[in-house]
This record gives sequence, C-alpha cells and structure tokens, in this order.
Amino acid sequence: MESDEEQIRELVQTWMSATKTGDLDTVLSLMADDAVFLIAGQPPMIGKAAYAAAASPGRPDQERPRFDGRSEIQEIKVLGDWAYMWTKLRVVITPQGGAQSVARAGHTLTVLKKHNGKWLLARDANMLSPVSEGTH
Amino acid sequence: MESDEEQIRELVQTWMSATKTGDLDTVLSLMADDAVFLIAGQPPMIGKAAYAAAASPGRPDQERPRFDGRSEIQEIKVLGDWAYMWTKLRVVITPQGGAQSVARAGHTLTVLKKHNGKWLLARDANMLSPVSEGTH
Repeated sequence: MESDEEQIRELVQTWMSATKTGDLDTVLSLMADDAVFLIAGQPPMIGKAAYAAAASPGRPDQERPRFDGRSEIQEIKVLGDWAYMWTKLRVVITPQGGAQSVARAGHTLTVLKKHNGKWLLARDANMLSPVSEGTH
Repeated sequence: MESDEEQIRELVQTWMSATKTGDLDTVLSLMADDAVFLIAGQPPMIGKAAYAAAASPGRPDQERPRFDGRSEIQEIKVLGDWAYMWTKLRVVITPQGGAQSVARAGHTLTVLKKHNGKWLLARDANMLSPVSEGTH
C-alpha cells in the first residue's frame, strides 16, 4: 500500500513520461475537471477541456515538438484529501524540422486533491523562464 | 466572529496596505517563519529572515521606492487549518528621484496556514510579468 506522498510522486513521474510520449489522455486523467493552470503573461487556463485544446493544436503527430523534462520535488505536504507540492522543473522543447531547442527552468507550486482515492492535480502555478541550453 | 475566508481577505488587505506604507514588521507578522516565496528567474526565498533582508536593502526611508498595488482574489478554498488562494495582482513600483514607474501584473497562487488561530502566508507563487503602464 503506497503512502499518499508516494502516490503523488508517481503522479509526477507519470505526468512527465506521458508528456514526453505525447499521451494526452493519460495527462488529462491526472488532473481534476476544474483544474486551473497559472503561468506568467497568459490568462488562466481553466478546466480539462482548455488544457486539451491547448495541447492538441490540430497538428499531425509527426509534427509534434519533442519534449524532455526533469522534475525535482522539493516538498510535498499532505493535508488529508488535499496536498500541496513545489518542484524545481526543467523542460526542453525541440521543434520538428531542425529548429533550435528551447529550454525553460524554474519552480512550480501545485495543489492536489484526492478524488475517489486517486490524487489529481487541481491548481498549478508555473514559474518557468527561458534558460540557455546546458545551464541548470 | 469572522469566517476563515473573511480573515484571509483581511490578511491580503493588510499585506497590501503595509507594503504601501513600508511597514515591514506588519508584513512579516502575516507570514509563517518557514514561508517560501517562488518567483520566475530567481532562487526560492525561504524564511521570514530572507524576506526581511530582501525588503530592507539598508537604504534610508526617503529613498524607498513607492509601491502601489491592487489584488483581486479569484478563489479561496479553506481546508481546515490550511487554505489555498489565487489572485489577480497588479503592482506599480515608482523609484524615488523621478525614474519611470514599473508596472507588473499577473497571478499568484498562495498556500496559507492557521497558526494559533491566525492565518499566515506559508507558500507563495508569484507569476507577475512586466506590463505597459495603463494596461490591465
């Protein structure tokens, strides 16, 4: 029987690996229906449908940018059926066709909730900013 | 008797007004000793002492930049002795001596905790980015 913290760590791993392989259905299964994503310079993205629309811009799969990322969890605090977590995150996005990769790094602060026994992402603050390739 | 949500709204108002008047002691009284502040492009600021050091760069009071800000709370969710909140925030910082004001706007995601009956800021994610003066 996994602890809540172990289940949340597993959610993060599954999220990252599903994002790498472009498995949108799995990513969507890890978030609450009313999830809110906050990011600098953009309006809030509210709800699973908004996330799906932003992630699938109608391009054929072979044109999908390649994604790589590494998440280092700094803290998980479980509060009954809710939890918060902050991570140090680094992602590298490589467009198809030879364009230059873009690396972004920074922190995230996430609120999670347990729904029918399963942890889901509920609110997410993304503070990543562009970095030079190779820096950490 | 104020509800938890009312107390948290009051904390936000007090935080903003104390920041405007440069009342650092009051701002520090509204955060947990181990508060963590996350912001893009900067290392995490961990603990009340780190906040105080960043806020008081040893300048005489008459050189302190003027601060104005407006916080619009989008959601408060109370989870027993913990809560999370996200806001739409706009701040304008005006240096002394006639230099141009700098406006920043965006969202915050904050985790709060109730300590000895008083709500305190515990974790804060700041996603503000520069905006042109006059835009909202």
